[in-house]
Amino acid sequence: MKETKAVLWGLGAMGSGIYKLITERAGIKITGAIGRNPQKFGQDLGESAGMKPCGVKISGDAAAVLAAAEADIVLHATGSFFKEVHPELLQAVRAGCNVITIAEEMAEPWSADYALAADLDKAAKEKGVTVIGTGINPGFVLDALIIALTGVCFNIKKIEAERVNDLSPFGHTVMSTQGVGTTPDQFARGVEEGKIVGHIGFTQSISLIARALGWELDRIVEEKDPIISSTSRQTPVVKVEPGMVAGCYHRAYGYRNGEIAISLKHPQQIRPEAEGVETGDYIRIEGTPMVNLSIKPEIPGGIGTIAMAVNMIPLVLAGSPGLKTLVDLPAPASWSKLR
Amino acid sequence: MKETKAVLWGLGAMGSGIYKLITERAGIKITGAIGRNPQKFGQDLGESAGMKPCGVKISGDAAAVLAAAEADIVLHATGSFFKEVHPELLQAVRAGCNVITIAEEMAEPWSADYALAADLDKAAKEKGVTVIGTGINPGFVLDALIIALTGVCFNIKKIEAERVNDLSPFGHTVMSTQGVGTTPDQFARGVEEGKIVGHIGFTQSISLIARALGWELDRIVEEKDPIISSTSRQTPVVKVEPGMVAGCYHRAYGYRNGEIAISLKHPQQIRPEAEGVETGDYIRIEGTPMVNLSIKPEIPGGIGTIAMAVNMIPLVLAGSPGLKTLVDLPAPASWSKLR
Repeated sequence: MKETKAVLWGLGAMGSGIYKLITERAGIKITGAIGRNPQKFGQDLGESAGMKPCGVKISGDAAAVLAAAEADIVLHATGSFFKEVHPELLQAVRAGCNVITIAEEMAEPWSADYALAADLDKAAKEKGVTVIGTGINPGFVLDALIIALTGVCFNIKKIEAERVNDLSPFGHTVMSTQGVGTTPDQFARGVEEGKIVGHIGFTQSISLIARALGWELDRIVEEKDPIISSTSRQTPVVKVEPGMVAGCYHRAYGYRNGEIAISLKHPQQIRPEAEGVETGDYIRIEGTPMVNLSIKPEIPGGIGTIAMAVNMIPLVLAGSPGLKTLVDLPAPASWSKLR
Repeated sequence: MKETKAVLWGLGAMGSGIYKLITERAGIKITGAIGRNPQKFGQDLGESAGMKPCGVKISGDAAAVLAAAEADIVLHATGSFFKEVHPELLQAVRAGCNVITIAEEMAEPWSADYALAADLDKAAKEKGVTVIGTGINPGFVLDALIIALTGVCFNIKKIEAERVNDLSPFGHTVMSTQGVGTTPDQFARGVEEGKIVGHIGFTQSISLIARALGWELDRIVEEKDPIISSTSRQTPVVKVEPGMVAGCYHRAYGYRNGEIAISLKHPQQIRPEAEGVETGDYIRIEGTPMVNLSIKPEIPGGIGTIAMAVNMIPLVLAGSPGLKTLVDLPAPASWSKLR
């Protein structure tokens, strides 16, 4: 079988990680790289990722790369929001490429923007390609894994899940979007002004679960509160004194018949161990039978998302055309050779 | 959309459970029931399941039921082994029905009997129907769930899983096939004579995992040891004194490049709490990242299998023709209305 050709679009930490993982897999070759950072233009993709040269130069000219790369698939990692990435995804589709994106809202794009999703779905069907969003959260822990567990149940009354993680490894951007290091007043103002966003993807996860179960929800409500530290906590980029904010406790609830039917909680903070908080992913399904699952520690978001994006490739290549979500395809497995 | 019509084939504890669950779901109707027990022939299916009459009579004449029922799908629960159920599955397929079976070996029929599987696959494709085996174990805990978790990983070195359950609710048949209540000598003889079989499906689970990961295995090895009780344990059907056998500790190992790459353990015993054993399902993937999952207590095999069989229905109705396994289709979700 001929080698599969892929273009990387977006070369930050996630895109570089995807590149490295693909170099370990057989049957797939990177034939183009589209970056956003002009400082990287002209650099060799391999060298830019801290590896040996691979002969592919990073370019800012998406049209030229897509025209030359003869790619079967685009691996896309430039942004979080559907509106923001839609033109790029559409351009990749129009170039005849299947697309895997890690944009959070693409885990369930219909709930983010129905018209844009319908537009992208139509374009994908016209070109005979598959487009899908994936990741760890959204994309796995708080949605696809929950949905798979519902398969062993009936009479489900309520689903509760919590993802408790550690922000300590992250840089300035994450600290500011989660409000780490602010005072409680600054946190409240940051949330109001939309600068402290917490987790992106709750609407996607809840919509995916509800759709899989055939549940009509009344509404989805999100709440964000500061995690106020009672100890001193520090990372290389931020210091939090007692009384200051160590992270964001973000929750989302899906209401059905006036009651909470889906409850997702995601406290994110630095140094959770400072106050005895154990990280982990927890799922509890109130049904017949009850399901009570723990994954300790939590599945790490960064390398997990890189793995999901690469592991999806054979399923997307074989998938039927259109804009898909994770519930439309078999679960990806960790393959080593494309066949 | 027209109502989906289903035939039940096999009306033991599992078949009756499937019937009850289907009566709670919308969009599907039972139009035929094939039994094996002559004492039930002519009885109303509903009454036989301890519910109100449903107008469907239980029959032993499979050909007549299949001819009259105009069924879209057969829900099959008569036996464990592929050789034993193959004629029934083939008959259902030739009648133009999709099939969901809970026969353990059908979770991965190719490893049970390649020629029979190829034959059934061909018949299903000719008739344009989908055939699949499902269940909790094999079918979920020690295979499909593990495979889904590998999707968040790369560089997997080893997979270890253990399912620790409680046989106390089961009857005489399970006690004797697991060797509960025997002496250690009787247990050894029972294993040798093939009367104490332990768990059915290890080959299926290991083959499914290896296929999903693209691993070539050297061999699959199974081991069975008695769980010798140091306390007195009792259920309504069996009594175990200290020194006697409380259950079967059955393991299976998939070797790759001379080393154990997949290790599945399944100790089954009565009253595990008598010696401080906590029941649960445990999965550990040695890869990047490591995944360490617990489900406590374990997902119950009986009602879980009933749920899986019914929850698979929409996926099988929509599936492409042929003999499939769980890794070929999206994970089933707990639906309430067929659309």
